Amino acid sequence: MRQSKLAIKTQKENPKDADNISAALLIRGGFIDKVASGIYSYLPLGLKVLRKIENIIREEMNAIDGQEILMPALEPKENWEVTGRWNNFDALIKIKAFGDKEFTLGSTHEEIITPLAKKIISSYKDLPIYLYQIQTKFRNEARAKSGLLRGREFGMKDLYSFHTDEEDLDRYYSRAVSAYYKVFDRFGIGDETYLTYASGGAFSKYSHEFQTVCEAGEDTVFVCANCKVAVNKEIIEEQSICPKCGNKELIEKKSVEVGNIFKLGTKYSKPFDLIYLDEKGERKDVIMGCYGMGTGRNMGTIVELFHDENGIIWPESVSPFDIHLIVLGETDEVKNKAEEVYQQLLNKGFDVLFDDREESAGVKFADADLIGITKRVIVSGKTLAAGGVGYRLRAEKEEAIISMEELMSKL
Amino acid sequence: MRQSKLAIKTQKENPKDADNISAALLIRGGFIDKVASGIYSYLPLGLKVLRKIENIIREEMNAIDGQEILMPALEPKENWEVTGRWNNFDALIKIKAFGDKEFTLGSTHEEIITPLAKKIISSYKDLPIYLYQIQTKFRNEARAKSGLLRGREFGMKDLYSFHTDEEDLDRYYSRAVSAYYKVFDRFGIGDETYLTYASGGAFSKYSHEFQTVCEAGEDTVFVCANCKVAVNKEIIEEQSICPKCGNKELIEKKSVEVGNIFKLGTKYSKPFDLIYLDEKGERKDVIMGCYGMGTGRNMGTIVELFHDENGIIWPESVSPFDIHLIVLGETDEVKNKAEEVYQQLLNKGFDVLFDDREESAGVKFADADLIGITKRVIVSGKTLAAGGVGYRLRAEKEEAIISMEELMSKL
Repeated sequence: MRQSKLAIKTQKENPKDADNISAALLIRGGFIDKVASGIYSYLPLGLKVLRKIENIIREEMNAIDGQEILMPALEPKENWEVTGRWNNFDALIKIKAFGDKEFTLGSTHEEIITPLAKKIISSYKDLPIYLYQIQTKFRNEARAKSGLLRGREFGMKDLYSFHTDEEDLDRYYSRAVSAYYKVFDRFGIGDETYLTYASGGAFSKYSHEFQTVCEAGEDTVFVCANCKVAVNKEIIEEQSICPKCGNKELIEKKSVEVGNIFKLGTKYSKPFDLIYLDEKGERKDVIMGCYGMGTGRNMGTIVELFHDENGIIWPESVSPFDIHLIVLGETDEVKNKAEEVYQQLLNKGFDVLFDDREESAGVKFADADLIGITKRVIVSGKTLAAGGVGYRLRAEKEEAIISMEELMSKL
Repeated sequence: MRQSKLAIKTQKENPKDADNISAALLIRGGFIDKVASGIYSYLPLGLKVLRKIENIIREEMNAIDGQEILMPALEPKENWEVTGRWNNFDALIKIKAFGDKEFTLGSTHEEIITPLAKKIISSYKDLPIYLYQIQTKFRNEARAKSGLLRGREFGMKDLYSFHTDEEDLDRYYSRAVSAYYKVFDRFGIGDETYLTYASGGAFSKYSHEFQTVCEAGEDTVFVCANCKVAVNKEIIEEQSICPKCGNKELIEKKSVEVGNIFKLGTKYSKPFDLIYLDEKGERKDVIMGCYGMGTGRNMGTIVELFHDENGIIWPESVSPFDIHLIVLGETDEVKNKAEEVYQQLLNKGFDVLFDDREESAGVKFADADLIGITKRVIVSGKTLAAGGVGYRLRAEKEEAIISMEELMSKL
C-alpha cells in the first residue's frame, strides 16, 4: 500500500485526553480514533493489527477443536431472567426496542449459548463440544479511561465448552490454559503474562486470569518469581503464598487482565435445563466451562509493553505491515529504484507499506518510528551509492546497507 | 471437518415460525438459530457462508480502492444532533448508559464517519478517499418477520466516499455500480438483480438500489425486460418508463433490496464542517457518497434463489465447504478408502465436510441435500466395485462413478 493513499494523519503530540501511553500512541499513529470515552473506531492500520490478533486467537482456538460461531449483541431479557442475572449484573446496558421489548447489549453470552447448546446436545455422543466467537461486547463501565485497556464497547473472543463430567472439563481446561499461553507467546507478551489465581465460584475454588504485568494496568497481582504464577489481590488474604510452589515472597505488581477462564459447572446448564442422556439413557446435567480473551485489550497491552519514546515497536506477529519501505530523495534514479524494490517485495508476497510521500527524511522517519512496523527498508541516494538498500529493525538503532539479495534472504 | 464433530443438528420439518423459505432452510440446516424476531446466531456452517460473502464484498471494495476500517455500534447523541437526525430517524434504537449519557445503536454511520474524515482530510491532496467497514447494524424495525431478509440486528458493508467535486463523485459512483454488479455476479444472483431507480434527495434526482427479484421480497419494483434496470414502486408514478431505454412496458415484481447507493453531496459534510483547502487555498465542502450492502440479507436472498424441495443449493462461491464427502457402508474396506479420499482431498487444499457418521444412506443424503454443499463425493461398496467414487453436483440429479484421477481433475 502506498502511504500517500493511506487514510491516516499522524499527530506529533500526545492527545490531551489519552489516559495511558498505548492509547496516546495508537491515536497519534492513526490506528484508532476516539468516538467517546471507552468507544473507538479502528482505522486501516489499527484494523490490520486487530485482524492479526483475532487470527492468532482463531488459530489457537481451532487447534483445541473450537468451532467458530457468531452470536448477536441483542440478548432478550427473558434469557437473563432464567439465570436470575437481569437485576444482578452491574455491567448490563438495558434497552427497550421493537415496541416494548427489553434487551441487554451482550456483555457476556452464557444466556445465549446455553439455550443454543440445548438444540445441539441431546446425547453423550454429542459431547464434548467447544463453541467460540470473536464478537463485540458492551459493558456499562462507569469509568472508562484506559484507552483499549478497558472499553465500553470492545472486541472479545469467548469460548464455551460442554462436557459430560468434571474430569472431561478439567482435561479441556488444561488444554485451554496451554492454548492461552501459546496466544500470548505469539503476541510477544508471554514472558510478562502470569496465570493468576482469582476468586472462584460455587463450582471451583479458583478461577484463573491471565495477567500481564505493566504499569498501566488497573489490576494488582502478587507474582511468584519462581514460577509463572500470580495471585489476584482480591484473594491475597486467603491465598498469600504461591499456589504452585509455596513461595511466600510474592511481589506486588500492576497488571492488565488479558484473559480469564472459568469452570462454570452446572451454573448455566441447570437453569436452562441443558441435559444429555448418558449411555444408560439417564438424564445428566451438562458441565460447562468458559474462556474469555479481549482482542482490543490485548492490542493495547502489546503497545504498553512494546514502545519507546518515539512510538510503537510492533512484534512481527501483529505488525500492521511486514515491511515499511521508505524512499528518501527526489532524483528519478532513487524513485525508480524504490518503485522497483516495492514491486519486488510485493511479488514475493510481502505486505508492504511504501512511504512514497514527498516529505522530508525527518518527517518520514518520525512517522515510521511512531507507526512501528517491525522491519524497515530504506532506498536513498546514499544506500544506492553504497550498492544496496538500508535495512533495520524498528527495535534496533543500527541501519545496515545490504544488497537486494541479502535483503531477500533476511526477509 | 468430520461431520460427527460438527456442531449441528438438522431438523426434518420447517420451523413453525419461519416466515420464508430461506429462513426455514437455514434454520433446518443448522446454519442459523433464532434468538428473537429479527435476531439470529450464526452456527459454524452459517458463519462459513457469511465469511465467504464478506470476503467477496471485501475483495471488490478493495478493488475500487476502499480501505477497511471498523466503527463502533454505540453512536453518541451529540453526533446525531449535529445532523438533526436524533429525533428525525424512525429506526433509531436509543439507549442511556454510563451514567446518563445517550447513544443510539448504529443503524448507519454517517454521523461517525464524517467527523472521522475531518481528522484525515484537510487538503485537496487528501482526496479522494474511500472508507468502508463490514459491521453489525441495529434497526428499530417494528415488524421483523423475514428471517435474514429484514433483521433487527444484521451485518452490513457500508462504504463512504469523499471527493473534491461532483464530477469525481460521479466517476466513483459508476465504479461502485460496476463493483456491485461483480459482487452479485459472484454470489450467483447477478442475473436476477436490477439497478433500480429510487427516490433521491436534495442532491440528486434518484438514488439507486440493487433489487433482486424473488417472491419472498418485501419490495415492489417495475422491471424493464430489455435492460437490467427497474423502477422502485415509490417513484413509479413520476417515473413510469424505463429510465435507460424508454420502454413503457415495465413489469411488476416482488424483490429484495440487496444493496443501495446514494450521492450524499454535502448533506453530512456541511453540518460537520468537513471542508478541504483547494489548490488556491480556498475552503470547499467535501462531496460525499455512500454505498450499503447487507451481508446476511444477501445470504438469505441467495437461498431464496437457490433451493429445491430438499434443501439449499449453494453457488460454489459461497458454499460452506468445497466438497461434501459421504461414506456409505460399514466395512473396513469402505471406511478405509473413505479416510484415504478425505486425506487426499485435504492434502490438495480442499475444505471438506466428511460425513463419517454412523447413519443410514437416507439420513446422510437428506442432510446433504438440506445443507446444499455444491459438490458431493460418495464412497461406498458400490462405487468401489465400479472402480472409483461417486461424484455429483447438488444442483444435478445424476451421480457419475469416476476414478480418483478423474475426480481430482474435475475438482
